[in-house]
Amino acid sequence: MDEKKLPTQEENFSDWYNQLVLRAELADYSPVRGCMVVRPYGWALWENIQKALDQRFKATGHVNAAFPLLIPQSYMTKEKEHVEGFAPELAVVTHGGGQELEEPLVIRPTSETIIGTMYARWIQSYRDLPILINQWANVVRWEMRTKLFLRTLEFYWQEGHTAHATEQEAIEETERMLNVYADFAINEAAVPVLPGQKSESEKFAGAKATYSIEAMMKDTKALQSGTSHFLGQNFANAFDIKFLDENNQLQYCWTTSFGLSTRFIGAIIMTHGDDQGLILPPNLAPYQVVIVPIYRKDEERAAVMSVVNKISDELVENGFRIKVDDRDGVTPGFKFNDWELKGVPLRIEIGPKDVEKGSLVLARRDILGKAGKSFIPMEGYLQAVGDTLRLIQENLLAKATAFRDEHIFEVSDYETFKDVVENKGWALGWWYDDAENEANIKADTRATLRVFAPAEGEGVCFYSGKKTKQRAYFARSY
Amino acid sequence: MDEKKLPTQEENFSDWYNQLVLRAELADYSPVRGCMVVRPYGWALWENIQKALDQRFKATGHVNAAFPLLIPQSYMTKEKEHVEGFAPELAVVTHGGGQELEEPLVIRPTSETIIGTMYARWIQSYRDLPILINQWANVVRWEMRTKLFLRTLEFYWQEGHTAHATEQEAIEETERMLNVYADFAINEAAVPVLPGQKSESEKFAGAKATYSIEAMMKDTKALQSGTSHFLGQNFANAFDIKFLDENNQLQYCWTTSFGLSTRFIGAIIMTHGDDQGLILPPNLAPYQVVIVPIYRKDEERAAVMSVVNKISDELVENGFRIKVDDRDGVTPGFKFNDWELKGVPLRIEIGPKDVEKGSLVLARRDILGKAGKSFIPMEGYLQAVGDTLRLIQENLLAKATAFRDEHIFEVSDYETFKDVVENKGWALGWWYDDAENEANIKADTRATLRVFAPAEGEGVCFYSGKKTKQRAYFARSY
Repeated sequence: MDEKKLPTQEENFSDWYNQLVLRAELADYSPVRGCMVVRPYGWALWENIQKALDQRFKATGHVNAAFPLLIPQSYMTKEKEHVEGFAPELAVVTHGGGQELEEPLVIRPTSETIIGTMYARWIQSYRDLPILINQWANVVRWEMRTKLFLRTLEFYWQEGHTAHATEQEAIEETERMLNVYADFAINEAAVPVLPGQKSESEKFAGAKATYSIEAMMKDTKALQSGTSHFLGQNFANAFDIKFLDENNQLQYCWTTSFGLSTRFIGAIIMTHGDDQGLILPPNLAPYQVVIVPIYRKDEERAAVMSVVNKISDELVENGFRIKVDDRDGVTPGFKFNDWELKGVPLRIEIGPKDVEKGSLVLARRDILGKAGKSFIPMEGYLQAVGDTLRLIQENLLAKATAFRDEHIFEVSDYETFKDVVENKGWALGWWYDDAENEANIKADTRATLRVFAPAEGEGVCFYSGKKTKQRAYFARSY
Repeated sequence: MDEKKLPTQEENFSDWYNQLVLRAELADYSPVRGCMVVRPYGWALWENIQKALDQRFKATGHVNAAFPLLIPQSYMTKEKEHVEGFAPELAVVTHGGGQELEEPLVIRPTSETIIGTMYARWIQSYRDLPILINQWANVVRWEMRTKLFLRTLEFYWQEGHTAHATEQEAIEETERMLNVYADFAINEAAVPVLPGQKSESEKFAGAKATYSIEAMMKDTKALQSGTSHFLGQNFANAFDIKFLDENNQLQYCWTTSFGLSTRFIGAIIMTHGDDQGLILPPNLAPYQVVIVPIYRKDEERAAVMSVVNKISDELVENGFRIKVDDRDGVTPGFKFNDWELKGVPLRIEIGPKDVEKGSLVLARRDILGKAGKSFIPMEGYLQAVGDTLRLIQENLLAKATAFRDEHIFEVSDYETFKDVVENKGWALGWWYDDAENEANIKADTRATLRVFAPAEGEGVCFYSGKKTKQRAYFARSY
């Protein structure tokens, strides 16, 4: 660990983020512009995210597979809106095995086209439907301005792709996966996202409708953290994905896709982190508990380490993810700072006096200082560790939810709206859907429509003054 | 499932393999030449392979990370032998975001160069060593002749990359990971590989020494199934991977790498499969047990399904991976053939008479027909299922080991050698190491030195007649 202090969030939120990602050893810059190296600590976090999501995908009937990285360039052009959206971001392979290729290949920016091609081959009849396949993959989008995790040339994600016999089923799937994302974000990552539909101008290139989960970062910017798309029959038409229905009639399928990426790590960092560093939710943290032995003399060391080894074994046996920091040559204080920077939810300290008294110290990452410390007897400590981790998980969600709700403001006129999105947080108001007005607002304030909000009854649009039944969240975003 | 019969192994082993991979829905051809789609059933097998290996990597102190897909072309040229080996196989990205790149990027064929670059940044002192990182990744090698799983343009693998302070430690790591591979192959995949060192001409481009696990397929060809490389200081020199030792002297690191890929799925198919299809080892099979309910009338259906549901719940609760084939419109016989093709180790049949009698039928995939069937009472069936799966796992290993040993022949002269490698299997003999002789043998017989074999004392080389202390396996290979 670098011993310099992090910049505070107040001083410079963007610097705080960049330096934290590097110093906590989540990721590093690579020699290729815009590509990142996800370091072991960051990848362990991603693996826990993967497990939590994969479980939910399998519980909703999805299976995993793997489709090729390389896609014939011509495939990208088959769906008109899709190519418009992605053509500017493609990485193109023109040579292979020392020869120029007859047709260039693109590195997948997303896989609707190649997967659609395979579905067209695999699907014959209604008996083959639905197809519910997910893949964990890397994709490449040639971004000009990059930021670790949030926007990188290559990133890691899962992309689910489904094909259905009816429009209704496909819509239900789109909504189901949006809810899976929201459930994961809220209950595993303690990120209190707001799920909802995107506007026409913000939807996925080629989709009929895009839904997303939107998270509020600690600088009050929004982060789109996962998306679920109802693709209608657009890709089925473009890739000829057809089936014989029960009446032996040939029909086009209805398809969906949904994705969540390593960007979500950015959501976790900026939802929970503070000036001391990361705060990771216990359900996803690579280490839930770090044990720091404290001693001066050799005979103290032996006594302390024998207790440390005993409880670390017990914690592992009981399914906790733990780290014993037995480094020599650095002080306990240094270790405390290091693991606070890395956001380990709970620290156990054990010193010679604890060994004598049969006690130990629990120190919470989410409540620093004395208020977060408890001195507990060894007896029953396993229960206490489990309980404290649950409390931390709950507290993180409660704090983030409170922060979010304190920074969402109802607006009914444009002046207030501007003040909110420029200085205070997110604006929530009645919105008469109009792409031109939306573009004007964006040009004027840099705020965009994040998602439509639940609405009852009717109101007056804060911008156009027109009557409307829709409400929407607006915010500046990553 | 296609109702045509597979070609037999005897008729055409290569056709048997290709058709089996497609019909068992392990993989499919993609529109891009030489790239495969790994279908859900194949990917589930790969996920089980990943779990078994990942556990072993973590138990030996390794952690996972992710390094970029794209590598500056110039990096590939920094290690002289490495570039000679890989230059002909590179896929090159020349354009990104609509612009020609200043320096082309290659898609990683392997990651020594990019990982070496990062290690040079991360390693300062002996305290940072060893570094033991693995990544699960896709790589691209522009192969001209491809075959599903065995040799594809894009494939999936893990690649471990380690850096050490001493030569001895690096050599120990190389051997440790070779043993990890052998342990995995033998005890999880029931593939009785022979581990050993490769000859100079067969080693990895840039390595000091390459070790591999070699498996014998049912056509007696060898399949290199995993490799572990001692890289000496070659890559440390090329990428400037240095550390300050305990005496404050700057030293070059010693590095290793090791990889096992989706090719291993080919090893499983061709070690165990028969004319009816796949036979998957219970430890890795996506489904260890398939339950086929048998009934004609509706009231039979209800009674049978109630037992099927009960035992399927119990099997899942007890950690078995199972599939209930409750498809309507196909006969039990069709289902039996289908799951035999797909290699599910154990089938449970339950019909109305079984329900009455409180019994069920177990049918082993490794022993077809009556000999592999047992009629057991419901009471204690969980124990019987577990025991039978263990027996199947053991039997697969025993059969494959016997097959391997029956097809390895000791040779002491070149005429016998030729007869063996051309008609019978693998040759094992005293070998005086000589690259030119090795090349002559390859040109003459298409057989290559697979690995050196354990040897005691001294003998006479079957080819050159020279005295030697080394023995080696030779065979034709994939």
